[in-house]
Amino acid sequence: MEKDNLSVVLHSQGDLRLEQRPIPEPGPNEVLLQMHSVGICGSDVHYWQNGRIGDFVVKKPMVLGHEAAGRVVKVGSDVKHLKEGDRVAVEPGVPREMDEFFKSGNYNLSPTIFFCATPPDDGNLCRYYKHSANFCYKLPDNVTYEEGALIEPLSVGIHACRRAGVTLGSNMLICGAGPIGLVSLLVGKAMGASQVVVTDLSADRLVMAKNLGADMVLTVKREDRPEELAKRVGGVLGAQPHVTIECTGVESSVQTAIYATRPGGVVVLVGMGAAMTTVPLLSAAIKEVDIRGVFRYCNTWPMAIAMLASKKVNVAPLVTHRFPLEQAVQAFETTRQGQGVKVMLKCDKTDQNP
Amino acid sequence: MEKDNLSVVLHSQGDLRLEQRPIPEPGPNEVLLQMHSVGICGSDVHYWQNGRIGDFVVKKPMVLGHEAAGRVVKVGSDVKHLKEGDRVAVEPGVPREMDEFFKSGNYNLSPTIFFCATPPDDGNLCRYYKHSANFCYKLPDNVTYEEGALIEPLSVGIHACRRAGVTLGSNMLICGAGPIGLVSLLVGKAMGASQVVVTDLSADRLVMAKNLGADMVLTVKREDRPEELAKRVGGVLGAQPHVTIECTGVESSVQTAIYATRPGGVVVLVGMGAAMTTVPLLSAAIKEVDIRGVFRYCNTWPMAIAMLASKKVNVAPLVTHRFPLEQAVQAFETTRQGQGVKVMLKCDKTDQNP
Amino acid sequence: MEKDNLSVVLHSQGDLRLEQRPIPEPGPNEVLLQMHSVGICGSDVHYWQNGRIGDFVVKKPMVLGHEAAGRVVKVGSDVKHLKEGDRVAVEPGVPREMDEFFKSGNYNLSPTIFFCATPPDDGNLCRYYKHSANFCYKLPDNVTYEEGALIEPLSVGIHACRRAGVTLGSNMLICGAGPIGLVSLLVGKAMGASQVVVTDLSADRLVMAKNLGADMVLTVKREDRPEELAKRVGGVLGAQPHVTIECTGVESSVQTAIYATRPGGVVVLVGMGAAMTTVPLLSAAIKEVDIRGVFRYCNTWPMAIAMLASKKVNVAPLVTHRFPLEQAVQAFETTRQGQGVKVMLKCDKTDQNP
Amino acid sequence: MEKDNLSVVLHSQGDLRLEQRPIPEPGPNEVLLQMHSVGICGSDVHYWQNGRIGDFVVKKPMVLGHEAAGRVVKVGSDVKHLKEGDRVAVEPGVPREMDEFFKSGNYNLSPTIFFCATPPDDGNLCRYYKHSANFCYKLPDNVTYEEGALIEPLSVGIHACRRAGVTLGSNMLICGAGPIGLVSLLVGKAMGASQVVVTDLSADRLVMAKNLGADMVLTVKREDRPEELAKRVGGVLGAQPHVTIECTGVESSVQTAIYATRPGGVVVLVGMGAAMTTVPLLSAAIKEVDIRGVFRYCNTWPMAIAMLASKKVNVAPLVTHRFPLEQAVQAFETTRQGQGVKVMLKCDKTDQNP
Repeated sequence: MEKDNLSVVLHSQGDLRLEQRPIPEPGPNEVLLQMHSVGICGSDVHYWQNGRIGDFVVKKPMVLGHEAAGRVVKVGSDVKHLKEGDRVAVEPGVPREMDEFFKSGNYNLSPTIFFCATPPDDGNLCRYYKHSANFCYKLPDNVTYEEGALIEPLSVGIHACRRAGVTLGSNMLICGAGPIGLVSLLVGKAMGASQVVVTDLSADRLVMAKNLGADMVLTVKREDRPEELAKRVGGVLGAQPHVTIECTGVESSVQTAIYATRPGGVVVLVGMGAAMTTVPLLSAAIKEVDIRGVFRYCNTWPMAIAMLASKKVNVAPLVTHRFPLEQAVQAFETTRQGQGVKVMLKCDKTDQNP
Repeated sequence: MEKDNLSVVLHSQGDLRLEQRPIPEPGPNEVLLQMHSVGICGSDVHYWQNGRIGDFVVKKPMVLGHEAAGRVVKVGSDVKHLKEGDRVAVEPGVPREMDEFFKSGNYNLSPTIFFCATPPDDGNLCRYYKHSANFCYKLPDNVTYEEGALIEPLSVGIHACRRAGVTLGSNMLICGAGPIGLVSLLVGKAMGASQVVVTDLSADRLVMAKNLGADMVLTVKREDRPEELAKRVGGVLGAQPHVTIECTGVESSVQTAIYATRPGGVVVLVGMGAAMTTVPLLSAAIKEVDIRGVFRYCNTWPMAIAMLASKKVNVAPLVTHRFPLEQAVQAFETTRQGQGVKVMLKCDKTDQNP
Repeated sequence: MEKDNLSVVLHSQGDLRLEQRPIPEPGPNEVLLQMHSVGICGSDVHYWQNGRIGDFVVKKPMVLGHEAAGRVVKVGSDVKHLKEGDRVAVEPGVPREMDEFFKSGNYNLSPTIFFCATPPDDGNLCRYYKHSANFCYKLPDNVTYEEGALIEPLSVGIHACRRAGVTLGSNMLICGAGPIGLVSLLVGKAMGASQVVVTDLSADRLVMAKNLGADMVLTVKREDRPEELAKRVGGVLGAQPHVTIECTGVESSVQTAIYATRPGGVVVLVGMGAAMTTVPLLSAAIKEVDIRGVFRYCNTWPMAIAMLASKKVNVAPLVTHRFPLEQAVQAFETTRQGQGVKVMLKCDKTDQNP
Repeated sequence: MEKDNLSVVLHSQGDLRLEQRPIPEPGPNEVLLQMHSVGICGSDVHYWQNGRIGDFVVKKPMVLGHEAAGRVVKVGSDVKHLKEGDRVAVEPGVPREMDEFFKSGNYNLSPTIFFCATPPDDGNLCRYYKHSANFCYKLPDNVTYEEGALIEPLSVGIHACRRAGVTLGSNMLICGAGPIGLVSLLVGKAMGASQVVVTDLSADRLVMAKNLGADMVLTVKREDRPEELAKRVGGVLGAQPHVTIECTGVESSVQTAIYATRPGGVVVLVGMGAAMTTVPLLSAAIKEVDIRGVFRYCNTWPMAIAMLASKKVNVAPLVTHRFPLEQAVQAFETTRQGQGVKVMLKCDKTDQNP
């Protein structure tokens, strides 16, 4: 194995570096991966720009990246289900303790969970990375590495739509046409939603939503009044949505989500906003509109792979930019400027294909 | 039948009158009831004092009362399951249309529902009242009229605890020891909650909570900081509650409810507050704490009767005051002053027993 | 209105007649429909051939037909949501009593429900038919009458897949490629199933399954041993199915369904077999494979219309034969012989289009 | 530590021996326990008498026992939540692999799970036993060792009632008044069941059911016809049960369970019968009565401890016999003869208290 382990390391707010790191040795239940494709997430950029997200603060250098796929190059002694050469997608969250959350199937809520590129845990934007074998999932031949890396954002959409209870004939409102809004759209349609309307401030982003299957799109303005916007949504759909997936975190958008949703429906909060939010809680309560948050995801990789292998969802169009790992800073800058949808870093010098 | 149909009529804000009304004639699917016991609800007092609740405005004289039990004295031509002399509890909400909400078992959300003492629909604080036979439920011999009348507030507790998913071993926090907090306590314990802590500003009200089965009580102050109060709750319970039933509607209490609840848990909003509320929605979202409202209830009378008949819950101690119908104004005044828990009006001159 | 109300009447076992019936007068909550397209169901043929299904016995002449769509020609005095000229699909089951089943959203289980062409209730294979307006659903312009009539069998598939909990990434086994197997396939795919394998004795019927989207098909033989067949299913899918929809009612097929299904999965019984069945119940129990039946359906028309209007499911190819109402006997004979998939009777002399 | 590790070892069918075994050394994630109280389960006796249960065959000597509580005497290097001296209850099933079942909260279905006293895994009927620390649960001071050991059978009742969906006001039928029927009764009442009827062949066993809270009991005979027995159950309850917990595994009893249960209800199969069972599956299907099995349990210890600590269930009366470990053979013989309810072996020479 070569000695090159070029890694994208955030030293502190604003201080992003490309540097060599030692190639790690996998433990008995781990595998060493040669990384192939790693997507840049908004949270990576946020750590770079702000040095923190909420209570998670970058206090020491941390490798970024958590939307990843690679190839197994070394297998720990106790690993049975993977072997050298397997192509895998990486689930970045690995519970450290077998606590009540884990035992009951909600390991994403386990307070001591390891998570790639959430301080202080290193991510996988590098050449070589070791990970718990139990959280590496073998990709079928007909699923590309990039699709494998996109399972991470897709998982957010799966978890959101599952928490929302999207089902056959659901009408959906999705607020925000960024990557998460778009994967929620793909998943919602795949789960049987009959009509999905997507809103955004940017008409450009809505073009992509339309291309990916949105039944209607609605360009909104910052100054739109939430109650009026809610009525417009109802008008466009011909009915109030059963489900609203709020992906912006903006207070007025959360308000719109609550006003718009049908009695007995669900608002799922995916976008993260300010610590305190002023919302028409009384309106939600007397309509019995449930407000549900999502924290990352759990138990999504197997179903995501099933969907990708059977071509039920097509995530490939989400990748709008590609950079070799060596140009990581330029890639981050592209993401920061909000260009395109998903920027993919190609970590394998010998194979820069999707 | 005598001609006396003394009724408690709210003419407009502040203008509460005792007056005679004609005895109604039941339609083919209705029964005429001689009312026996009718509880006074906070909403009755609120209409009297304010002339409105939210968008519901008293525009013409309306009979008050919706926590009621009585005796069938006349049966409509198409009614099969009831006969003269049957003792019944009255479910005050009767859907008018067979819409999607009704067909799917959520008739409480039907926008055109009839509801006793919600303007403009008359209630049953009177001597004689007709009602849909399908929403009158026969009482077993070992359930008193007053217990029958108390099924209405009990139903709010049932619906709240059911929406909350209370189950075996649940830890619960109940904010507020008024009538709804107390019935939520009774129901929560009956559904298997292992530990329930009840909070209130008034130590007096907490005495009743303790007597009714609260495992712990906590006297709070208006100036308590929500995050600190949440920690005190966790300390008292030895764990964060799985379920919080918020019965006050006060903004700081809703905040406490969110901070206090365990990741993956549920906050149910029963208390009604201001139209807009400022809450730590981000905290709820990343803990995946669901926020669920309740609008009245549905499908609760049969299970409530089963619980009362089998003595699994004991609501009798909730009745702290009784007045003959003729003294309704004094009864309303007692309720307004917040004395005791539940004030019961006795509508049958010949039988003022429970 | 013309006086012709030609109707397909079953007088007793084997005695099927085309005869005139009076045009009925709609009650206050009813509409009179001019029937357009009515599909023939296996149960119609079964009543014709056997005079009974289980405890339901044809004791007096009964109009057949319950897969129907037509045009409103007269509106009862209390009907608000429909008007003359509306094109509607007919839900054949109409609860007669507001019992606990109805109130809780399971009106299909109401023991006194009216149901078209289940003795003694008349069906709608005729020119003019009156029905509860609450169970007639307006069709959008882009949904044909025949699609409207096909909502009935589609509803069986919806109810089966919903009871099965089909979701994103589900692997499904469908036993039997008759009309119900095929609609379950359409619905399963629309709800997110990633892989569906369909089995049948007839390779011909499996061609249709393949055309409608089955990922794999498996021709089976009567003499196949259930445990071995279960293994073949697992081999073809590459995994045990999460969900099996058993549409044949044949004992060995039910056994195969249980053996095949993944631990924690669900077997839904749609096919109706003998009163007593010998099954590996121990195997189901220790795998925690739930066995769930379906009795018709409830709350399916709105979501079916949403799916048809948004082109998420395409039922049109199911119609393989069409006959004018006058040739009903020939149409029934065609169905009895098992030709094609769905035979449609065209009841409107002036419009025989889909 | 003393060197005595007297153990109850089954060598082969019928060959039960008391012999010394080495005291094991706990691994990094394990604890060594000094066993205090271990109950004898029907399955222990079944292995002794038959050498096998289904596919599980005793091929080499195996320590029996899986209903256990003890005291921590040594702690593995990575264990954080337990310390020497802690009193713990032992969950006997420990998943070996982090497979899909485990990750989604159904670790009981994991095919490679370790389980005490299921061949070839050793149980804990001995003086010293090591176990995964993650599956040892600290007992509060007010819960005895014997109550801790009884959490195992109680867990079967919890899992059964949870799978059954017992809730407020449920009517229940429990077939069989053995230990599992009795714990299902305790749990059902604690979850809100309003009326529970228990059936058994033995009037003696029904006395215990009555004492533990059964609302009604019904002595049945082997020759009772299932349909008639089902009617008697309905007569005694005044309604068909929402939920039936079948704890006998006898074919006719499973048939009775299906006939007796209310449309839309649930039959849970806890008793294990023959491989093939003949049942009225058609009747279950058209009533939409779900048939659900249980395989052991998962995620029950924390809620069981909560219930015991808060005195919501009282399992102490289930213990009818106690023997010192040295008299294990006599204890097994007592269980084999069906005397009493639960026989407890006392493994700690210095403390034979409950």
